[in-house]
Amino acid sequence: MEYRIEKDTMGEVKVPADKYWGAQTERSRNNFKIGPEASMPLEVVHGFAYLKKAAAHANCELGVLAAEKRDLISKVCDEILDNQLNDQFPLVIWQTGSGTQSNMNTNEVIANRGHVLAGNKLGEGERLLAPNDDVNKSQSSNDTFPTGMHIASYKMIVETTIPGVERLRNTLDAKAKAFKDVVKIGRTHLMDATPLTLGQEFSGYVSQLDHGLKALKNTLAHLSELALGGTAVGTGINTPQGYDVLVAKYIAEFTGLPFITAENKFEALAAHDAIVESHGALKQLAVSLNKIANDIRMMASGPRSGIGEIIIPANEPGSSIMPGKVNPTQCEAMTMVCAQVMGNDVAVTVGGTQGHYELNVFKPMMAANLLQSARLIGDACVSFAEHCADGIEPNHKRIDELVNNSLMLVTALNTKIGYYKAAEIANTAHQNGTTLKEEAVRLGYVTPEEYDEWVVPSKMIGSL
Amino acid sequence: MEYRIEKDTMGEVKVPADKYWGAQTERSRNNFKIGPEASMPLEVVHGFAYLKKAAAHANCELGVLAAEKRDLISKVCDEILDNQLNDQFPLVIWQTGSGTQSNMNTNEVIANRGHVLAGNKLGEGERLLAPNDDVNKSQSSNDTFPTGMHIASYKMIVETTIPGVERLRNTLDAKAKAFKDVVKIGRTHLMDATPLTLGQEFSGYVSQLDHGLKALKNTLAHLSELALGGTAVGTGINTPQGYDVLVAKYIAEFTGLPFITAENKFEALAAHDAIVESHGALKQLAVSLNKIANDIRMMASGPRSGIGEIIIPANEPGSSIMPGKVNPTQCEAMTMVCAQVMGNDVAVTVGGTQGHYELNVFKPMMAANLLQSARLIGDACVSFAEHCADGIEPNHKRIDELVNNSLMLVTALNTKIGYYKAAEIANTAHQNGTTLKEEAVRLGYVTPEEYDEWVVPSKMIGSL
Amino acid sequence: MEYRIEKDTMGEVKVPADKYWGAQTERSRNNFKIGPEASMPLEVVHGFAYLKKAAAHANCELGVLAAEKRDLISKVCDEILDNQLNDQFPLVIWQTGSGTQSNMNTNEVIANRGHVLAGNKLGEGERLLAPNDDVNKSQSSNDTFPTGMHIASYKMIVETTIPGVERLRNTLDAKAKAFKDVVKIGRTHLMDATPLTLGQEFSGYVSQLDHGLKALKNTLAHLSELALGGTAVGTGINTPQGYDVLVAKYIAEFTGLPFITAENKFEALAAHDAIVESHGALKQLAVSLNKIANDIRMMASGPRSGIGEIIIPANEPGSSIMPGKVNPTQCEAMTMVCAQVMGNDVAVTVGGTQGHYELNVFKPMMAANLLQSARLIGDACVSFAEHCADGIEPNHKRIDELVNNSLMLVTALNTKIGYYKAAEIANTAHQNGTTLKEEAVRLGYVTPEEYDEWVVPSKMIGSL
Amino acid sequence: MEYRIEKDTMGEVKVPADKYWGAQTERSRNNFKIGPEASMPLEVVHGFAYLKKAAAHANCELGVLAAEKRDLISKVCDEILDNQLNDQFPLVIWQTGSGTQSNMNTNEVIANRGHVLAGNKLGEGERLLAPNDDVNKSQSSNDTFPTGMHIASYKMIVETTIPGVERLRNTLDAKAKAFKDVVKIGRTHLMDATPLTLGQEFSGYVSQLDHGLKALKNTLAHLSELALGGTAVGTGINTPQGYDVLVAKYIAEFTGLPFITAENKFEALAAHDAIVESHGALKQLAVSLNKIANDIRMMASGPRSGIGEIIIPANEPGSSIMPGKVNPTQCEAMTMVCAQVMGNDVAVTVGGTQGHYELNVFKPMMAANLLQSARLIGDACVSFAEHCADGIEPNHKRIDELVNNSLMLVTALNTKIGYYKAAEIANTAHQNGTTLKEEAVRLGYVTPEEYDEWVVPSKMIGSL
Repeated sequence: MEYRIEKDTMGEVKVPADKYWGAQTERSRNNFKIGPEASMPLEVVHGFAYLKKAAAHANCELGVLAAEKRDLISKVCDEILDNQLNDQFPLVIWQTGSGTQSNMNTNEVIANRGHVLAGNKLGEGERLLAPNDDVNKSQSSNDTFPTGMHIASYKMIVETTIPGVERLRNTLDAKAKAFKDVVKIGRTHLMDATPLTLGQEFSGYVSQLDHGLKALKNTLAHLSELALGGTAVGTGINTPQGYDVLVAKYIAEFTGLPFITAENKFEALAAHDAIVESHGALKQLAVSLNKIANDIRMMASGPRSGIGEIIIPANEPGSSIMPGKVNPTQCEAMTMVCAQVMGNDVAVTVGGTQGHYELNVFKPMMAANLLQSARLIGDACVSFAEHCADGIEPNHKRIDELVNNSLMLVTALNTKIGYYKAAEIANTAHQNGTTLKEEAVRLGYVTPEEYDEWVVPSKMIGSL
Repeated sequence: MEYRIEKDTMGEVKVPADKYWGAQTERSRNNFKIGPEASMPLEVVHGFAYLKKAAAHANCELGVLAAEKRDLISKVCDEILDNQLNDQFPLVIWQTGSGTQSNMNTNEVIANRGHVLAGNKLGEGERLLAPNDDVNKSQSSNDTFPTGMHIASYKMIVETTIPGVERLRNTLDAKAKAFKDVVKIGRTHLMDATPLTLGQEFSGYVSQLDHGLKALKNTLAHLSELALGGTAVGTGINTPQGYDVLVAKYIAEFTGLPFITAENKFEALAAHDAIVESHGALKQLAVSLNKIANDIRMMASGPRSGIGEIIIPANEPGSSIMPGKVNPTQCEAMTMVCAQVMGNDVAVTVGGTQGHYELNVFKPMMAANLLQSARLIGDACVSFAEHCADGIEPNHKRIDELVNNSLMLVTALNTKIGYYKAAEIANTAHQNGTTLKEEAVRLGYVTPEEYDEWVVPSKMIGSL
Repeated sequence: MEYRIEKDTMGEVKVPADKYWGAQTERSRNNFKIGPEASMPLEVVHGFAYLKKAAAHANCELGVLAAEKRDLISKVCDEILDNQLNDQFPLVIWQTGSGTQSNMNTNEVIANRGHVLAGNKLGEGERLLAPNDDVNKSQSSNDTFPTGMHIASYKMIVETTIPGVERLRNTLDAKAKAFKDVVKIGRTHLMDATPLTLGQEFSGYVSQLDHGLKALKNTLAHLSELALGGTAVGTGINTPQGYDVLVAKYIAEFTGLPFITAENKFEALAAHDAIVESHGALKQLAVSLNKIANDIRMMASGPRSGIGEIIIPANEPGSSIMPGKVNPTQCEAMTMVCAQVMGNDVAVTVGGTQGHYELNVFKPMMAANLLQSARLIGDACVSFAEHCADGIEPNHKRIDELVNNSLMLVTALNTKIGYYKAAEIANTAHQNGTTLKEEAVRLGYVTPEEYDEWVVPSKMIGSL
Repeated sequence: MEYRIEKDTMGEVKVPADKYWGAQTERSRNNFKIGPEASMPLEVVHGFAYLKKAAAHANCELGVLAAEKRDLISKVCDEILDNQLNDQFPLVIWQTGSGTQSNMNTNEVIANRGHVLAGNKLGEGERLLAPNDDVNKSQSSNDTFPTGMHIASYKMIVETTIPGVERLRNTLDAKAKAFKDVVKIGRTHLMDATPLTLGQEFSGYVSQLDHGLKALKNTLAHLSELALGGTAVGTGINTPQGYDVLVAKYIAEFTGLPFITAENKFEALAAHDAIVESHGALKQLAVSLNKIANDIRMMASGPRSGIGEIIIPANEPGSSIMPGKVNPTQCEAMTMVCAQVMGNDVAVTVGGTQGHYELNVFKPMMAANLLQSARLIGDACVSFAEHCADGIEPNHKRIDELVNNSLMLVTALNTKIGYYKAAEIANTAHQNGTTLKEEAVRLGYVTPEEYDEWVVPSKMIGSL
C-alpha cells in the first residue's frame, strides 16, 4: 500500500496515500485493534458533520473564522452528510472514551478534503484549513462528541424508532377495530377465563405502544440539549461570547430538529443521563413489544396441536413436508431484538454511572448502544408490521370452538339458577368431559332453549 | 399453638386461633415457603386497604352493597392503614404471580376483623361480611393487585423518593452557590485540565438531579392509571355501570393523589409497563447519584495521599490510630443502593416482558422491586444529605495548591507570548518538576509581574 | 426507652439499656436510616460468629490471646450461632461498604455479652473483653467481612441451594423415567413438529439442572478462599506468623466445610470475583428453571382451551365458579424468583466492578444479593418439587389426541410412497381440515391397514 | 442489477446473478431488513462450514451419501473456511430465532458453489448437490445452528479470549515481580491506609485474572457438547445409527478441538445454558478487568494534581498545550468493553430463559453476543497489554513522597511508645499539617534517630 507522511505533535506517521485522515486517526487505528474496523457508528460521524458546519457558521458570525474557511468546512460537511466520505472514518467504538480520536478523524478529513476541494493535491502545499485551529475552533472533543451523539440519537429516534413503532401501532389499531366483534376465550395464568374480543386484546397492545411512544417522546427534551460551547471542562473556555446559543441554533436549522444549548454544560460533559433516559424508554418499548410478539406467536401456534386462534402470513417455506407449519419468524426476530435492547440498557446504565469529575469517558459505547437499540426497534417494528401484523387474520372456526367449549361460560347462569347449581353443572361437565349444555339440561336446571338464550359469550365481554 | 378451623371450596384448614386470616391465606403460607415470611411489602397491603375501602364505597353508591357492610369494611381498612393489623399479613412475594393470595388475605382479614368489630367472636357465628361476595365485590385479584401496587408505588415515589431527592438536590444547590468562587483544577480522563469552580461542579450535580426528578415525574401519569374495574380479564365483567371511574375517584379522594381509571384495562392487567417506566426513571436517578457520590468520595480522598479538595463530616470513628481518616461511608451506602437499583431494574424489566394473554403474573415481584428501589433512593438521599452533603466544605489550601501548581494554566499565556513559547514553558516545567512561573521567567519570556498579572485561574472559568 | 452510655473515640452515645451492642453500632443505626432495620442478613452475622471464634482459637494457639478470653468469645459465638442473640444485630445493608459497622456490632455484642456471661452486669465494671483489642485481634473489617460473607454464601449454597435443586432434579428425573413411553407431539417455534416422549422432554430439564449444578459446584473452590489474615490492606499487618492458614483451618473445622486461606489476600479484599462467580452460576440455574417452569405451565394450560397435555396438582381454590382451573402458581413463584435472580446478578456484577485500590466497598450489598438468590432458588425448587412437580401426571387422552391429529406424522410415509405424495396428503388434509388417514385413503395412496401399520408416532421418537 | 431465478416450495425468487445463495436466503434478505446487512457473525458461518463438512463425512461413512458428494461439499466448506466466500452470507442476526435461514444460506451456497466447482455454470444444468437432501442430510436447522454456534464460540474463546487475557496476565505478573520492592501507601475507602508494595497490588490483579481464566475454562466442557444428531426435536429422527457420535468426532478432528456429542440432545436444542454459562465467565472477566483498568487510571492520574504514582505510556498527543497530559485511553477502551460485556450478559441471559418446548429461538442473538464479548475481551486485553500495561513504570519520587508523608506510619510507633502517645503524634501532625517526625520529636517522645530507625514503611508490608 502507498503511504504519505503526516505529522502531529508526537512526530511522523505513515497514512494510506489515498485517505483524507491524518496522523491522529492513524495512531488510533494502530492503538485500538479491538473488534471489527470502523465500528464507530456512521450516525455519529454525521452528527459531527452537522456540528462542525454549525460551529464554522457560528465562529464566522462571531468574527473568529473567515467566511472562506466556513464555506470550505461546510462543503466537506455536506459531502459527509451525503455519504460520499464514509470510507474515511475507520475508527472503532473502543477508543478513548471521550471520542477524541473520532473528533480528530473528522477534523483531519475536513481539513484535507477541504484542501483538495480548494484545488490542491492531498499532502502537498500549505493547507488553508488547520484541523485543530480552524475545524475544531471553539470546540473540544469533550463537548463535540456528546453533541454529535445527541444529534445522532435524536435523529435516529425521530426518523427510525418513532415512525417504526407508529407503523406497527397503527396496524395493531386497525386490527383492534377489525376484530372488535370476534369473541374469544380469555386466558389468565395461561388458563381459560371469561371471554373477551380479539379486538380488545389488540387494543391492549395499542395502549402499550401508545404509552411507550409517550414515554419515549418525554425523553427528547433532555436529548435536545447540546453540550457544544462547554469546550474542555464545561466552562466554555476559548469560545466567543454567545457562541453556545448560536451554534445550537445553527444545528437546529441544519437538522430541522429543536436542538438547544444545554442549560448546564457541566452536566452535559460529565454525565450522559440524557442517553440513559432515552434508552430507558427504548427498553420500555422492548418490554411492550416482547409481550405483543409473544402473545401473537402463542395465539398462532399449531396448526393442529397448539392454540391456533389467529393465522399469520407464511413468508418462508416451513418444513417441506409439513404444510401449514408457518413459523412465527417475525415474532422471533422481534423478541431477539427486545432481548438485545434489554442488554444494551445495562451497558448504557453502567457507562452512565461512571463519569469522573468533569468528563464521562464511556461516550462512544453509550452512543453505539443507543443507536443500535433505536434502529433495531424501529426496523423490527416495520418488519413485524409488514411481514406479520398486517396479515394477521382470526381463525374464526377455532376461536368459536375454544370459546364455546369453555366451562367458564357457566358464569352466565349464576344470575339465573344460582351459583351452586351453576357450579354443579361446570363440575359435572369437567369430570365427564362433556359440554355445559349437555349437563345443564341433563341435570334439569335449564331447557336447551334457555341455555342458548342465556349462555352467550358475546354478552360477557363488557363495555370496556 | 392453638388453631381454629376455616373452610374454603377445597375443604378445611387449621388457622392460628388468634389470626384474622382464613383458609386461603393459610394454604398460601404452607404452599410457598420461599424466603423469609411476610416479605410481601406492607405498602401493597396498604394499597389494598385503600382500594377495598373505595370499592365498598363505589359498590354502595351504585347500589350493590349495603351501607352497613361498606362502613364495616371501611373501618377495618382504616385500621390496616393505621398499622394496627400489620401482623395479619404473613404472605410472601413468591406466591402466585397475580397476587391472588394477598388479595384473599386482605379479604379474609377484613371479613373476620369486621366480624369482631361487629361485636362477634372470631370463628363463631354468622359473618356479616363474606370475603369474596362482599369484600371482593366487583373485583378480581387481576385488577386489585395492579391497583394496589400502583397506589403503593405512587405513594412511595411522591412521599419518599421525590422529597428525598429534592432534599439532596437543595443541599447540593446551596453548596453550588456557596462554592461559586472556589476556583479549582478541572479534571478530564481523571487528568489535570483547565480550571473551573467547585460551585460549577456542584451545579452539574444539581442539574443531574433536576433532570432525574423531571424524568421521574414524567412517569407518574402512567402510574396514576388504575386497573380496578377490569376484573378478571379487563372486560369489567360483574361490575356495575360506571364503577371503574367511580372507584378511581374514591381512591383519589382517600389517598389525596390524582388517580384515574386506566384508559385501557386490558393493558392494565396484562402489562405492567407503568412499573417498568417508573423504575426506569428510578434507575436514571441511581445513575446520577452514583456519579455524584463517586466524585465526592474521590475529591474527599486522603487526608494526605489522595485528592483532598473537600472535607466531609466524620460520623464514625475511623481507624483509632489514624486521625483524619474519615471514610466516605455515606458515599458507599449510596453507591450500593445505586447498584441495587440497577439490578432491580433488570428484574422489573424481565418481569414486564412476560405477560401472557390477559395477565402478567410477575406482579408481586415487580411491585416489591419498585418499592424497594423507590424507598432506598429516597432514604439514601436523605441520609447522604444529612450526614454528608450538608457538611461538605472546601479544603481551600489544598484546592489552591493543586490549581496553582497545574501546568494547564500556561494556556493563559497563549494570547500573550504565542502558543510555541507557552508550550516550551510548560514542557520545561514538566521535565524539571518546576513551576510555570519559574520557567517562564528563567526563559525570559515574561517578567514575574507579567506572569502574576496574566496567569490567574479565576479568569479561566468562563461564564457558563 | 431506657439507655445506658457507651463510649468510643468520638465520645459518648446513648444505647438502649437492654442491648449488648455499643457505641459504634448505635452510631450506625442513627447514620444509616436506609430501608427497613436489621436488613443485614443473619447469615452474615453467623459467618462472623464462626470467624470470631476461629480467630480467638488461632490467636490463643499462636500466643496472643489468653485461653480465658478465647473461651468467653467462643461461648458468645456459640450463642449467636444458636440464634439466641438475633435481636442484637440491628444494622442495615446500606452502611459503610466495608461492613465495618457490622464487624463492630459483632465485636461489641461479643464483648458485652461475654462480660455478662462472666458474671457481670451490662455496662458496669471492667470488661474482660475489649471489642477491638480482643475480639477483633489480628483482624480488620477489611478481611473479616469478606470472610464472613464467604462463609455465609458457601453454607447457603451447599445447605439450601444445592439440596433444593437436587430435590427438584430428582423429581424431574423420576418423571422422565415414568413418562418414557408417553409419546406426544414435539413443538418447535411453538409449532407442531415430529413426536417425542414426555420422558424425553423431562430428561432435557434434568440435563439442564445437572449442568447447572456442575457449574455451581465449579464456583465453590473460589468461594472457599478466605480473606482472613489479610487485615487492613492484604499485607497481614498485625497478625502473628502462620495465622492466616491456622484461622482458616479452624473455620473449616467449625463449619465442617473445606475453607482454606486465600492464595492472594490482595485479591480477596479488593475484589469479590468469587461472589460474582458463584452468583453467575445461580443466574444460570435461574435461566434453566425459568425454561422448565414455563414449559410446564404451557403444557398444563387449559383445561379446555389450552394445551392440556399434563395435569398439575391443585393446591388452592381456583375460581369458585370454574372447576378445573388449576393455576400454575408454583410456576409463577418460580419464574418470579428467576427474574429476581437475574436482577440480583446485575447488582452483584456492578458491585464487583467497583473495587478501588485495596478495597471493594460494595460488600454488604453483594453478600445480601447472593444470599437472597441462593436461598430463593433453593426454597423455590423445594416448593416447586413438593407442590407441583411431584404431582405432574400426563393427560393421556389429550396427548394422544394431539399427536394423532398432527399433520407431521405424514413424515412416516415418505419412505413408503415418496415425498411428493406424502406432501399432497398433508396439504389436502390441512386445506380440508381432515385427517391424514382420511386423505391418504381417499387419494388412493394407501389402504387403511397400511396407514395404521406405517404411521405410528411411537416409531418416530428415535433412540436418543 | 442482474438476476437469475431460483425456486423453493413457495415459488420463484429473483436472486443476484453473481451470488451463490438461493431462494430461501433471498427471501430472508427481503423479510428481515433489521439493522445493517450481513450482521450474522462470520464465525457462525465458519462453524457451519466445519459441521457441513463433518456431516458429509459422517453421512458418507455411514453409507447415506456418495463419496463424490462428500468431496464436493468438503471442498466448498474449505473455501468458506479460507474466507473466499465471505460475501455470500448476507443475512442478519434478526431473522428466525432458530437460524434456519442461515442454515439454508449455507446449504444453498454449498450446493451452488459445488455445482460451479464441478464444472457447471451457476443457475444452469442439473445440480449434483441438493441443498436440503444432500448438504443438509441427517441435519435440521435445530441441531446445526446450536452446533455452529458452539464451534464458533469455543474457537473464539480458546483462540482469542484466553490468549488475550493470558497476554495481559503475564504482563501484569512481570510487573508484580518487577515492582515487588516498591513500597507505597495503601488505600481503602479511597483513603490513606497502611503501606504495601506496588508489586503486591499487581499480584492481586494477576490473581483476579487467574481465577477468571479458571472460571472460563470450567465452562468449556459444556460448550464442547454438540447438538448435531438431534435433528428436528432432539430425537435424532432421520439420522443413521451412530451418526451423532461420529459427526462430533469429525468436527473435533477438523477443528482440532475436543468436541463431543451432547449427552442430552433435548437440552442441546431447547436450552442454551452452555452459552449462558460461558458468557457468565466472560462477564466475570469483565468485572476483573474493569477493576484493574480503573485502578491503573487512578494511579496514573495527574500529572500534577492527581495521584501520579505510576506512569503509563503516551500513545497519542494529549492536549497540544499541556505536556504530560497522558490520557489513560487504553483504560477507557477497556472499561467500555467491560460495560458492553455486562450488557451482553443480560441479553444472553434473557434469551436463555425463553426456550419453549423443544426449541430455544434466540440462537442467533445469543451467539452474536457471546462472540462479540469473547472477541472484545481478547482484543482489549492485547491492546491494553501492548499499549499500556507493558509500559507501566512507577513514579518513585511521587510514591515515596506519598507514603512518607502518610500519618498512617505512626502505627509503627505503637509498640515502642504506646498507643496513646502515637495517636497524639498523629493527631497533632494532622491538625498542624506537619510531619509525624516533626511532632514526634517536638513532643519529646522519640529522638530523630529513633524515629528514622523505627518508622520504616518497608517493614510494614507483611509477608503475604
